[in-house]
Amino acid sequence: MSSVKSVNIGGLKIGGGAPVRVESMLKTPLEDVAGCVLELDGLARAGCELVRVAFPREGLRGELRQLVTKSPIPIMADIHFNHRFAIAALDCGCRSVRINPGNMGTRGLAELISAARANGAVIRIGSNGGSLSAAQLESADGDRAAALVAAVEEQLLPLASAGFEDVVISAKSSSVPQTTRANFILSQRYPFPLHVGITEAGQGVGGAVKSAVGLGILLSQGIGDTMRVSLTGASKDEAETAYSILRALGVRNKGINFVSCPGCGRRRIDVERMAGRVKALLPDGLPDGLTVAVMGCEVNGPKEAAEADIGLAGTQNGFVLFKKGKTVATGGEDTLEETLKTFLAAPV
Amino acid sequence: MSSVKSVNIGGLKIGGGAPVRVESMLKTPLEDVAGCVLELDGLARAGCELVRVAFPREGLRGELRQLVTKSPIPIMADIHFNHRFAIAALDCGCRSVRINPGNMGTRGLAELISAARANGAVIRIGSNGGSLSAAQLESADGDRAAALVAAVEEQLLPLASAGFEDVVISAKSSSVPQTTRANFILSQRYPFPLHVGITEAGQGVGGAVKSAVGLGILLSQGIGDTMRVSLTGASKDEAETAYSILRALGVRNKGINFVSCPGCGRRRIDVERMAGRVKALLPDGLPDGLTVAVMGCEVNGPKEAAEADIGLAGTQNGFVLFKKGKTVATGGEDTLEETLKTFLAAPV
Repeated sequence: MSSVKSVNIGGLKIGGGAPVRVESMLKTPLEDVAGCVLELDGLARAGCELVRVAFPREGLRGELRQLVTKSPIPIMADIHFNHRFAIAALDCGCRSVRINPGNMGTRGLAELISAARANGAVIRIGSNGGSLSAAQLESADGDRAAALVAAVEEQLLPLASAGFEDVVISAKSSSVPQTTRANFILSQRYPFPLHVGITEAGQGVGGAVKSAVGLGILLSQGIGDTMRVSLTGASKDEAETAYSILRALGVRNKGINFVSCPGCGRRRIDVERMAGRVKALLPDGLPDGLTVAVMGCEVNGPKEAAEADIGLAGTQNGFVLFKKGKTVATGGEDTLEETLKTFLAAPV
Repeated sequence: MSSVKSVNIGGLKIGGGAPVRVESMLKTPLEDVAGCVLELDGLARAGCELVRVAFPREGLRGELRQLVTKSPIPIMADIHFNHRFAIAALDCGCRSVRINPGNMGTRGLAELISAARANGAVIRIGSNGGSLSAAQLESADGDRAAALVAAVEEQLLPLASAGFEDVVISAKSSSVPQTTRANFILSQRYPFPLHVGITEAGQGVGGAVKSAVGLGILLSQGIGDTMRVSLTGASKDEAETAYSILRALGVRNKGINFVSCPGCGRRRIDVERMAGRVKALLPDGLPDGLTVAVMGCEVNGPKEAAEADIGLAGTQNGFVLFKKGKTVATGGEDTLEETLKTFLAAPV
């Protein structure tokens, strides 16, 4: 379970038994600092704990520095090629950089390692299914999971040789079987915290499902110390989906556990509509892990959702409100809002 | 992997190495036959292979018979208490019934087993987290996964005693850890096909994610012969989500594998908007398992999506269209529709 070693990014512990962290990456370009801050605030509210920001040129130092100052959560600068950009990011206050050591040159990497040491910063490295070279694939006999692992090892070697161990490693691809297999191997072979995710998962329900399948498999076996759900869409959806996955696994309980039946021929109400109404009525600030159920019929509903802290089931004329399987109120459809508000106003 | 034994429901093989089947349950009440047929047709188009229908009273025999005749896929009648309803369902042409043997009485169950034998029908049994009795929970020392298994065994015993083995078994709850653990045990202990699912998963992305986590964990280990994603919402969404899960695992390839990047500060285009446009342009009837990618920038996009059969990446002035990582066309934003249509018209 979890990694043996841990790292600390500006106060955020990753690995070594810390809770699985939720990450995202800014979609707003760094040029637009105000937009970035707005996005960061939304991410923080959704529970995101670490945000990666592309830092494509040194000319954006001022913007990066402002962002680090204004961000409610730690920033990891994402650098593609130049070690000077990584050192500049550390100068701007970032306590973590994501780099590919193979792109930095021996001397450049040595300079970056010194700067990271001086700043107590963490270096994230990692391979990506789309960036595997022909040589890497060939030496792995075309086994893409093995090639992902080998690519991580290529990046890890120069850091390990320098005795630098404040690293987070990752191996990601858009294929769930490749990603899970590569991470099984890495988790067995190395003590470093693992960043896990399925890259380019897509958009909407399909993208969330692909991420949930891959991350569910890994996290259910205790593999993964920090996660990113990569979705085409709003970044706060990435954080919310991450917590849905963690909640389903019982690993972290942020947010409401929403239970609702699919509605069969036995249903008394339009479950979808009632579930929507109930969701809209739930105030912010309810305790994490609270289970809320909406069930189609009063015959099976309260029993099937007996563990729910708050439950509603349809009846011939309206609804019953129940708590841990026991009816606490009944009412007609038009009194739902009022009844639920009264109930929620009392301590749950 | 897969169950040792298999069953056959009106020509549909389940277990014993057959593909993992995709199930759903009608949300339209049986009283409305035309509505049921419409729902069934939609489910069949979405790839659903078996549909459960609540059959709450014998007076609906005529409706059930019509449905069985008109349905493009096999129907399983869902019966709560009365063995006569189950026998009536077999008379109406159903080749499978879902029952709880404990509710049927010894003589009733014997009659039902005779009728099932005479009709070559399959009996599905199973436990549900919400229906566990206090006695079942107590004898499992409060371990809900163990209680789910014990409840299945209670139902299985009278069938096994009668030598009836055309059964599908299931253990479902709205908790992923409970459901996965119960199914691990059942898959090791019994040779019968397993129906798997997370009950009352909820609605929208949250419901799909909970199902994907639970079913991903089970199916990645070869556990589960037929699956249902229980969602509050349209039943065809259940089938589509099931295939998204199977596709992510590489278990079944129905549908398009859609890959799109989350869009970072490096992106050249609004990836979400372009992904939406591309999805809308894809015609029906594309080969199953085709990978379509939409990537934000031309620098990383075609390489990161090098395995895509069709890919689009944003450029400063429009897009590049690529196939297996090689550019095949470029264009301005306004020529996207035309270029993609021309490309798709040629054999992929």
